[in-house]
Amino acid sequence: MDMASEVLQPEGDDMARTSWNMRRIIAMYQETFTVIEKCLKPVVVAVQGDCVGGVDLITACDIRLCTQDAWFQVKEVDIGLAADIGTLQRLPKVIGSRSLVNELALTVRKMYADEAKESGLVRYGYKPRISGQGGDDGWSSGDGRGDSSPVAVQGTKVNLIYSRDHSVAEGLNYMATWNMSMLQTEDVMKSAVASVEKKSPKTITFSRL
Amino acid sequence: MDMASEVLQPEGDDMARTSWNMRRIIAMYQETFTVIEKCLKPVVVAVQGDCVGGVDLITACDIRLCTQDAWFQVKEVDIGLAADIGTLQRLPKVIGSRSLVNELALTVRKMYADEAKESGLVRYGYKPRISGQGGDDGWSSGDGRGDSSPVAVQGTKVNLIYSRDHSVAEGLNYMATWNMSMLQTEDVMKSAVASVEKKSPKTITFSRL
Amino acid sequence: MDMASEVLQPEGDDMARTSWNMRRIIAMYQETFTVIEKCLKPVVVAVQGDCVGGVDLITACDIRLCTQDAWFQVKEVDIGLAADIGTLQRLPKVIGSRSLVNELALTVRKMYADEAKESGLVRYGYKPRISGQGGDDGWSSGDGRGDSSPVAVQGTKVNLIYSRDHSVAEGLNYMATWNMSMLQTEDVMKSAVASVEKKSPKTITFSRL
Amino acid sequence: MDMASEVLQPEGDDMARTSWNMRRIIAMYQETFTVIEKCLKPVVVAVQGDCVGGVDLITACDIRLCTQDAWFQVKEVDIGLAADIGTLQRLPKVIGSRSLVNELALTVRKMYADEAKESGLVRYGYKPRISGQGGDDGWSSGDGRGDSSPVAVQGTKVNLIYSRDHSVAEGLNYMATWNMSMLQTEDVMKSAVASVEKKSPKTITFSRL
Amino acid sequence: MDMASEVLQPEGDDMARTSWNMRRIIAMYQETFTVIEKCLKPVVVAVQGDCVGGVDLITACDIRLCTQDAWFQVKEVDIGLAADIGTLQRLPKVIGSRSLVNELALTVRKMYADEAKESGLVRYGYKPRISGQGGDDGWSSGDGRGDSSPVAVQGTKVNLIYSRDHSVAEGLNYMATWNMSMLQTEDVMKSAVASVEKKSPKTITFSRL
Amino acid sequence: MDMASEVLQPEGDDMARTSWNMRRIIAMYQETFTVIEKCLKPVVVAVQGDCVGGVDLITACDIRLCTQDAWFQVKEVDIGLAADIGTLQRLPKVIGSRSLVNELALTVRKMYADEAKESGLVRYGYKPRISGQGGDDGWSSGDGRGDSSPVAVQGTKVNLIYSRDHSVAEGLNYMATWNMSMLQTEDVMKSAVASVEKKSPKTITFSRL
Repeated sequence: MDMASEVLQPEGDDMARTSWNMRRIIAMYQETFTVIEKCLKPVVVAVQGDCVGGVDLITACDIRLCTQDAWFQVKEVDIGLAADIGTLQRLPKVIGSRSLVNELALTVRKMYADEAKESGLVRYGYKPRISGQGGDDGWSSGDGRGDSSPVAVQGTKVNLIYSRDHSVAEGLNYMATWNMSMLQTEDVMKSAVASVEKKSPKTITFSRL
Repeated sequence: MDMASEVLQPEGDDMARTSWNMRRIIAMYQETFTVIEKCLKPVVVAVQGDCVGGVDLITACDIRLCTQDAWFQVKEVDIGLAADIGTLQRLPKVIGSRSLVNELALTVRKMYADEAKESGLVRYGYKPRISGQGGDDGWSSGDGRGDSSPVAVQGTKVNLIYSRDHSVAEGLNYMATWNMSMLQTEDVMKSAVASVEKKSPKTITFSRL
Repeated sequence: MDMASEVLQPEGDDMARTSWNMRRIIAMYQETFTVIEKCLKPVVVAVQGDCVGGVDLITACDIRLCTQDAWFQVKEVDIGLAADIGTLQRLPKVIGSRSLVNELALTVRKMYADEAKESGLVRYGYKPRISGQGGDDGWSSGDGRGDSSPVAVQGTKVNLIYSRDHSVAEGLNYMATWNMSMLQTEDVMKSAVASVEKKSPKTITFSRL
Repeated sequence: MDMASEVLQPEGDDMARTSWNMRRIIAMYQETFTVIEKCLKPVVVAVQGDCVGGVDLITACDIRLCTQDAWFQVKEVDIGLAADIGTLQRLPKVIGSRSLVNELALTVRKMYADEAKESGLVRYGYKPRISGQGGDDGWSSGDGRGDSSPVAVQGTKVNLIYSRDHSVAEGLNYMATWNMSMLQTEDVMKSAVASVEKKSPKTITFSRL
Repeated sequence: MDMASEVLQPEGDDMARTSWNMRRIIAMYQETFTVIEKCLKPVVVAVQGDCVGGVDLITACDIRLCTQDAWFQVKEVDIGLAADIGTLQRLPKVIGSRSLVNELALTVRKMYADEAKESGLVRYGYKPRISGQGGDDGWSSGDGRGDSSPVAVQGTKVNLIYSRDHSVAEGLNYMATWNMSMLQTEDVMKSAVASVEKKSPKTITFSRL
Repeated sequence: MDMASEVLQPEGDDMARTSWNMRRIIAMYQETFTVIEKCLKPVVVAVQGDCVGGVDLITACDIRLCTQDAWFQVKEVDIGLAADIGTLQRLPKVIGSRSLVNELALTVRKMYADEAKESGLVRYGYKPRISGQGGDDGWSSGDGRGDSSPVAVQGTKVNLIYSRDHSVAEGLNYMATWNMSMLQTEDVMKSAVASVEKKSPKTITFSRL
């Protein structure tokens, strides 16, 4: 249920009403990051320096990069609260080790770029190579790809997020229902031709400096 | 719902009917990999050289090996479509980093053996040691174990797959209901005796060359 | 359903009744580890030497440490049964690589401290530094934090476990409903003040020797 | 996922893009009825005469009334499509007999007031008694109650909808987390006093003429 | 998981192996009724006289009719077993009262046509009117409709079954993804025209004699 | 998660801590009714006169009876709170019409025996016939059956409750795994023989006076 848009709320100011209002506000903040998942273009985020209070944001993105001097901290416990706008929900689904997730969230330990890369939170711990492809430097690219079919890229994002929250069987069923129409795009033919014609794909390659 | 075996489909050739048929065909292809999960013997897959279009297949297997020259690519976006026969559904549940999954699926980047091993996609990046145990070289072993109790091995596989798609509480409930009869096998006594008698277990050890 | 506390069971001794009783006993054993998740204090476990038959226990804990000589083994298949008190359910949600999980459970291979650390099962492969903070050496600390707000720490644990078993949307909804009252604690103010006053947080730092 | 608010969509006009746009439009229409569930006040709907194309709307409401001459029809199959803005999703959860739901949706049969009442779709098949309570005639009452605690009424609605879509155990867990703060309202004391003082509750009584 | 088609099973004849084989056989029997749900044409079933052991079958159908002398019984408990090929799973989702479902399954009480109709198990307790429409008497009609669009009828069935097993939000999401292509059928135009031209729809009307 | 048995709770008395304690207490009350579902014997409940505050209790039972003078009321809204120990979670799964459930919970309307019977809440609106079978009058019978196989009756109850909270496919899978051992009971043979030998089954027949 989309709590952020609940139409009414009880008037008054006792503790229950304060809680009610609090819940609505939390939901609104949560929504500010969830829209990133709803954006059909893949979203690449790059972290420079400290990322404190930003883990909510970056875990809602699709691909995470960082500079060598980046570090990450889930600091909410230190200020007396449980993180409530996405970190506890998304971080365990982004990185592999739940032991690490628990430690970060419970002990407020800082994690630096190297460990962040090893843990799978970010894929390349450093600044991406400035590629000459299309005058694009990789950081500003919205979809991670210069010239891919939007039908393919966006369908991939929608189904990756769907799979995250469902069983494999459910994900396969949804995928088949999705592609039954999406395969009927002229992009398939165009992409196939383009794929044959050019030797190297125009993939943005996030490599180390 | 097992779409592949839907009994009827609407005749005709407008776009809706084409979609309907497309969905049935996708489901049939999906099923060709899902049967690997249904095979009660653990399935070990080994990759040599390129694995393009094969990620669907290998993620449906139980254990993945590869040679040093192996590389992996999820190429569907490049030909204008979202991967629909298992990669987007199973890959995120096989490897730990969703950042990496997203990058592979959205940017068509190649991943080589070393990174594949680090990411957890394959467990040993190289050719397994040819073991002398039982004249078996590890590659051809269907269940990953020479002489284990099939009741134990197969029950383990069934419940590992069940756990993947359910909460911990659900998984525990199912496990208890499974083992309430499966523990009543004479294999437990036989295995216990064998376990005591032999010094080293006949486990296939997938080690580096 | 809490099988361990099923009120009655059918009398008699045929195979069905034996199964029934077996299921009740398995559920009781499962519960002995599940209570660790119900403990609102974070639970840190440290492994020294072999951890055979203990993977059920440690995967129910929040943070796992080990000494350099530790090794881990899921040995159930070797004695003719599928592990039924938590390993098959929790291990795949603790470490990132399902390939590794499958291999450990199906081939009974030993995993040593270094690989355990790389896999994400334990976070620091070695003995933690004896910190001078509060005369506490890190091993005995129940909540991983010296002086954090219990409202914050415990709420974090409850929601991390809830997220593990639900979709992101479900987790966010539950989190907002949780925090609508939990934010109304005086700990937030106290923690904020404390956070400003002291230079270095009293976080237990699990570092290598 | 809130499809109605997907931020972008692929440009162009082939079949896949038409489908994409179609999906967004369907989701927008669906949302126009889902907001009724998000309205924290209970919504009472009253049907007079034919309700064709309106079953989507009324099944999203909390309480359904109708006049003696009302009739209901799910007519989508007759115009070549499957109902896609709520009827197939909500009707089976509103009335008890799935046999009836299937028949209505598949055969386009009309259902008149008497059968609608028997089936549980509407609770009172006739015009409600014009009550003298507060000059309110029952039809216009937004929350079905004259002077109930909004904390109680709205919490009841939120949890009834939550229960519809979850298991009993899940619903109980959510309810406890909800009420842990909502019970701390002064409405409980006020309501208790009012409940003792007045002989007959001011409940709107929907009775037959 | 499609247990009926599990590829292998352990050889031998102890109790665990007997259980394993038993499970496979039960799954095969279950599948014989589940195919009815997979049949894209709506399936109408009519019961004459006793329906003992047939409740599994009829609850897998879409619409249930019966003659005046029909009666229904869930007799498994009387022969020492829990019904395992569909009754306990589908009956509670077909009729409204769980109290009745429990009583039928636990006490083996017979239910006659009148109560079956009231309970919602069958929609018309009697023989349907022999309609003159197309020389069809209603009993033999496979899809309950003479000339409806198959795209509409079959899409309706698929989504009704999907909704049964999912939350409303999940059902709406799937429906939108389904119809994004299915609305692009020429049947919509044809049906609309036909709907305007003919005065009375050719709906099969199941009325009492 | 079994909140009632959470091992620790934060000390102190601010609003957050009061909420925390409140949640634990609610969960304990919820558990007092949930144990009825865990009791493997079917539980029959009979209501005489008013059932106010007892709807939580009776909806956790398996079969509900009542005398002619019984009436039911969900009165929580009238005292300023949302019902939190089972009514909002179980009532919608017991009776067919969600319109009625909503009305009862939101308007505090009384429901009398006749309507309760029609709605499916109770199966027989009146006092059950005092049967001469075994000197048992039907009210005191714990399992609703004089001499049924406990393996059959209890397995039926466990699976009926499982089905309530799962999809049909999930329910079928669990059922097959349950019965793979439970069919191996000597009760099947005994019951079959008994079933043939006696003319009329010893079923308790709840009939009207």
